[in-house]
Amino acid sequence: MKLLSFMRGDQASWGCVVGQGIADLHHRFGGRYPDLKSFIADGCPAALLHEVTTPDLGFDEIVLAPVIPNPDKIVMAALNYHEDGMRSAKIPDYPVLFLRLPTSQIAHGAPLIQPKSSEKLDFEGELAVIVGKSGRHIPREQAMSHVAGYSIYNDGSVRDWQKHSHQFTPGKNFVGTGAFGPWMVGRDDLPIPEHGLSLVTRVNGVEKQRTDTSRMIFDIPYLISYISTFAPLVPGDVIVTGTCTGFGSTRKPPEFLRPGDLVEVEIEGIGLLSNIVEAED
Amino acid sequence: MKLLSFMRGDQASWGCVVGQGIADLHHRFGGRYPDLKSFIADGCPAALLHEVTTPDLGFDEIVLAPVIPNPDKIVMAALNYHEDGMRSAKIPDYPVLFLRLPTSQIAHGAPLIQPKSSEKLDFEGELAVIVGKSGRHIPREQAMSHVAGYSIYNDGSVRDWQKHSHQFTPGKNFVGTGAFGPWMVGRDDLPIPEHGLSLVTRVNGVEKQRTDTSRMIFDIPYLISYISTFAPLVPGDVIVTGTCTGFGSTRKPPEFLRPGDLVEVEIEGIGLLSNIVEAED
Repeated sequence: MKLLSFMRGDQASWGCVVGQGIADLHHRFGGRYPDLKSFIADGCPAALLHEVTTPDLGFDEIVLAPVIPNPDKIVMAALNYHEDGMRSAKIPDYPVLFLRLPTSQIAHGAPLIQPKSSEKLDFEGELAVIVGKSGRHIPREQAMSHVAGYSIYNDGSVRDWQKHSHQFTPGKNFVGTGAFGPWMVGRDDLPIPEHGLSLVTRVNGVEKQRTDTSRMIFDIPYLISYISTFAPLVPGDVIVTGTCTGFGSTRKPPEFLRPGDLVEVEIEGIGLLSNIVEAED
Repeated sequence: MKLLSFMRGDQASWGCVVGQGIADLHHRFGGRYPDLKSFIADGCPAALLHEVTTPDLGFDEIVLAPVIPNPDKIVMAALNYHEDGMRSAKIPDYPVLFLRLPTSQIAHGAPLIQPKSSEKLDFEGELAVIVGKSGRHIPREQAMSHVAGYSIYNDGSVRDWQKHSHQFTPGKNFVGTGAFGPWMVGRDDLPIPEHGLSLVTRVNGVEKQRTDTSRMIFDIPYLISYISTFAPLVPGDVIVTGTCTGFGSTRKPPEFLRPGDLVEVEIEGIGLLSNIVEAED
């Protein structure tokens, strides 16, 4: 089942993909779940979803929102993939984590914003994990039971602002840079990512990044356990699991995104996240 | 006027200090403002506050909450004070910023939590700025009009986790480490911090940090302007303006907090924030 958040006119809603359309589950369930986060918090009851067999709307009747528009937290891992020929000395002892603000998020299909203050907007294709169950001090062995599902993230990064200091915060929090979508695939509907899902990023159709999720350095159970040591995880929290090499600033010469560029991130079994770059007004 | 958030039994409320007590403004204003953030968003109407001349409660009848328990964002500056004998080469080009999660916050008087996973809990006394008015791309010259008021912050830091990687996130986000209180003093009730307010941190009565707020490297208008370049500021956002030297890990030998230690941060014209360290359960 593919769950998503969207705008239907001025009304925020959420639902699931049925055939070529969408079922509006906010409406179907009588407002019992005001947003996807609240449905996730209730465990995404399968009995309710089984009854949904027909769509209410076409994709052309809605505007997608970020999968979780209003997460309590978005914890991002930097890099986090083994590369060919990587020496063990380059493997860090701990994951590199930073936070994103929900105001930086955009939906599948929304413009990825190149800010006025920079010409160094870059892309990073990543697997996103959506938390389903609250917890603190979650042991590795129990971590997967806290996962509701998976999605795709483009951790759009403003490289010069990211490097203003040693802390990444400014460059990772520009409005309109964190693309998240198009939907969440439930945990049980996807093979275990540690077993390997291909993850590919393209710009204007040209492949720039390719890896598979079995090559993560710090895997999903590790990340959940580590993060929950310092912060409580709650339903709807988003953990974005890091990228592999090949993003623009690693290329020779460096390649940055320009207005009109199409950025696509594709993960096997989940789908395709695509956004076109637009200059900030 | 000193505005604060508190729990009255199981009920979250907010109010102001009147004489030796507290007026419950959630109740007085008939629930029109459910929390301090919503009152700030309405511009802290002076006409309403002028009518509040008698307290409803004693301090012993409430339990304080963090001044803003539910900010949309908490942006923290690292360091950020000129030190005696500091060479200009050590002054950075840009502020060092990181984010705190609201789940890490505690009130004045609440236990400061030393986590099970570390013996390196440290203190940092800082001036907090509370945003009153929304804005993006705020020019420096207009920045102060976006300030609602000021408070005190102890940016409790778990140093080993802060240094697991080059990103501070884990060590700055442990539950129970961000002390924020006791109240907010309105912008017009405090001299301009750039003109210099003394800022002192003590542990068990012994002075550990002393500076004054005229010594900030990146002042409040700069921080507001810089942050609003990448993220929209909204009422209730908290900008914590950085610390001076003297915190535990800068001392020789290093000094870390232990259960039972009393940490006090005092800022001229605002008040005293105090917390006693407790070991995590």
